[in-house]
Amino acid sequence: MGRVPTIDNVRTAEMRLAGHAVRTPLLYSPFLSERLQARIYLKPECLQRTGSFKFRGAWNALSALDPTTRQRGVIAVSSGNHAQGVAEAARLFGVGATIVMPADAPLLKRQRTERSGARVITYDRASADRDLVVADVVAQHGGAFVHPFNDTDVIAGQGTVGLEIAADCAALGVEPNVVSVPCSGGGLAAGVALAVRETFPNAEILVAEPAGFDDYARSLAAGAPQSNERLAGSICDSLLAPAPGAIGWEINRSRLAGGVTATDAEALHAAGLCFDELRLAVEPSGAVGLAALLQGRPDITGKVAVLVLSGGNIGDATLAEAVAAYRSAEAS
Amino acid sequence: MGRVPTIDNVRTAEMRLAGHAVRTPLLYSPFLSERLQARIYLKPECLQRTGSFKFRGAWNALSALDPTTRQRGVIAVSSGNHAQGVAEAARLFGVGATIVMPADAPLLKRQRTERSGARVITYDRASADRDLVVADVVAQHGGAFVHPFNDTDVIAGQGTVGLEIAADCAALGVEPNVVSVPCSGGGLAAGVALAVRETFPNAEILVAEPAGFDDYARSLAAGAPQSNERLAGSICDSLLAPAPGAIGWEINRSRLAGGVTATDAEALHAAGLCFDELRLAVEPSGAVGLAALLQGRPDITGKVAVLVLSGGNIGDATLAEAVAAYRSAEAS
Repeated sequence: MGRVPTIDNVRTAEMRLAGHAVRTPLLYSPFLSERLQARIYLKPECLQRTGSFKFRGAWNALSALDPTTRQRGVIAVSSGNHAQGVAEAARLFGVGATIVMPADAPLLKRQRTERSGARVITYDRASADRDLVVADVVAQHGGAFVHPFNDTDVIAGQGTVGLEIAADCAALGVEPNVVSVPCSGGGLAAGVALAVRETFPNAEILVAEPAGFDDYARSLAAGAPQSNERLAGSICDSLLAPAPGAIGWEINRSRLAGGVTATDAEALHAAGLCFDELRLAVEPSGAVGLAALLQGRPDITGKVAVLVLSGGNIGDATLAEAVAAYRSAEAS
Repeated sequence: MGRVPTIDNVRTAEMRLAGHAVRTPLLYSPFLSERLQARIYLKPECLQRTGSFKFRGAWNALSALDPTTRQRGVIAVSSGNHAQGVAEAARLFGVGATIVMPADAPLLKRQRTERSGARVITYDRASADRDLVVADVVAQHGGAFVHPFNDTDVIAGQGTVGLEIAADCAALGVEPNVVSVPCSGGGLAAGVALAVRETFPNAEILVAEPAGFDDYARSLAAGAPQSNERLAGSICDSLLAPAPGAIGWEINRSRLAGGVTATDAEALHAAGLCFDELRLAVEPSGAVGLAALLQGRPDITGKVAVLVLSGGNIGDATLAEAVAAYRSAEAS
């Protein structure tokens, strides 16, 4: 297992990202504050370069490579957001990227990965062993493998989301009671938990997962990593990691307050709300924490909550489904 | 004519808006910076309460009314964004609002105005005299009339956009060379020009208008207010004021560097780019400055430019048209 990152690693990542990543705002939401009877701030990572927080970890990981290694190119496996993050970081460094994607990855995400100049190699989730595909790619093309979450530098990079939340809350004189973070392998949650709790040790960091893919919530409840039964089958295509990553788990096991889930219907409804009310394109995976909060999971009445909207790479058909779901609920 | 607002009026407005309006961010755009070979910052007022900057002026105007007057309710005439701003400010103050809207106002904008609890009265642009309709409404319902742009407090409220731009540029250590502002009656431009040039006297403030509705650009060139020939017929439904407002003109005549225009096709393309690349819902009116810049009007190569994206109330059909326009241009 790689080394568990420290807050100093996150601070180093912040310096590396300056001028390359977008310093996303902490955005007060009057609409959600009124609806949830709470004080709601959004961290809209849909406004990040490549449309998700993943660029942060990718950029930090590529920055941490020694130049000779980096020059040989990088390899990643991802259904979309990490793919785009790594591909774009590689483009900006002027090095090659090979991305292994499941054949059923969202078209938008694949197109954006290719637009950054990456070579995309697809595999069939049902029939192929992903690890063997990756091993083949490494053997054939060479390059440094950048794990989507189980990587010291990737977690430190995602942690800059938490540093920014903490700095902006401090500047506003606001103490966050709850910080809700969409969760797949736990890298973003780990980085955010590390950085936010450095400044706000009493903040409750919650992970939000798709129903049926709540390995992290179950792991926290059990005190040991648990796996998901299924590997596919949620509209939240970014949140389907099979189990907590080992490095992030070491951070999260003692720093997370628990997990919440949202169904596909709830995640779509929340993504529709983001578009109609917040004027932000947010993919269902990125809206899963909001979806849970809207259902009272947990009840945050009277509290200050920060919601990480982790990604905005939503395809047209999904957006149409999302706004239809939201509008139909509002009309009834 | 009302009094011309001062920078102190804008500072007062900022205090009034604190905790009620959204303090929108200044957002660096790597995508646009790369494409335009410049340093581009966005001021996304689509993220403002009610989806446009108009809430600022409305809130400030209602705050400035004496409570007895305000209690009798407010009246506005608007095709949509000012309507929503006034309706929502009235709702938050707990007073009634009557909004006169053209019958062909975008459905989304009318629905949102009604959702805030306002009474909406429609008129036919072609056959009815708007001023007479408004006079009738005032006589029948009573209430304080809040002009969309030719009003001291409304302009001061819109000026908070400029104060925030100036403060954020100063905090970043960045001097804006160009600030591009979508323009209808000139209230937003006047407020922004007043506030930005207080801190950055060399910043060039440009107004952006739909082609065929460039009364402000022509007024600046002629040195005296000019009118538009047409009152309708652009996809930029928020930018169709017939002529510069008198109060704003007194500020703008000496502070604006000039005007640029964009066609409907260019404005749609820019709104499509905002959605696809920036993950923001921006209406064509709000994207008209970006549309002009993308066509090299003006050339900002190597400069620091701030783009005000003034509103995000885009209907489904227009959004579909916008993304189709952008994608088709990108594919060719």
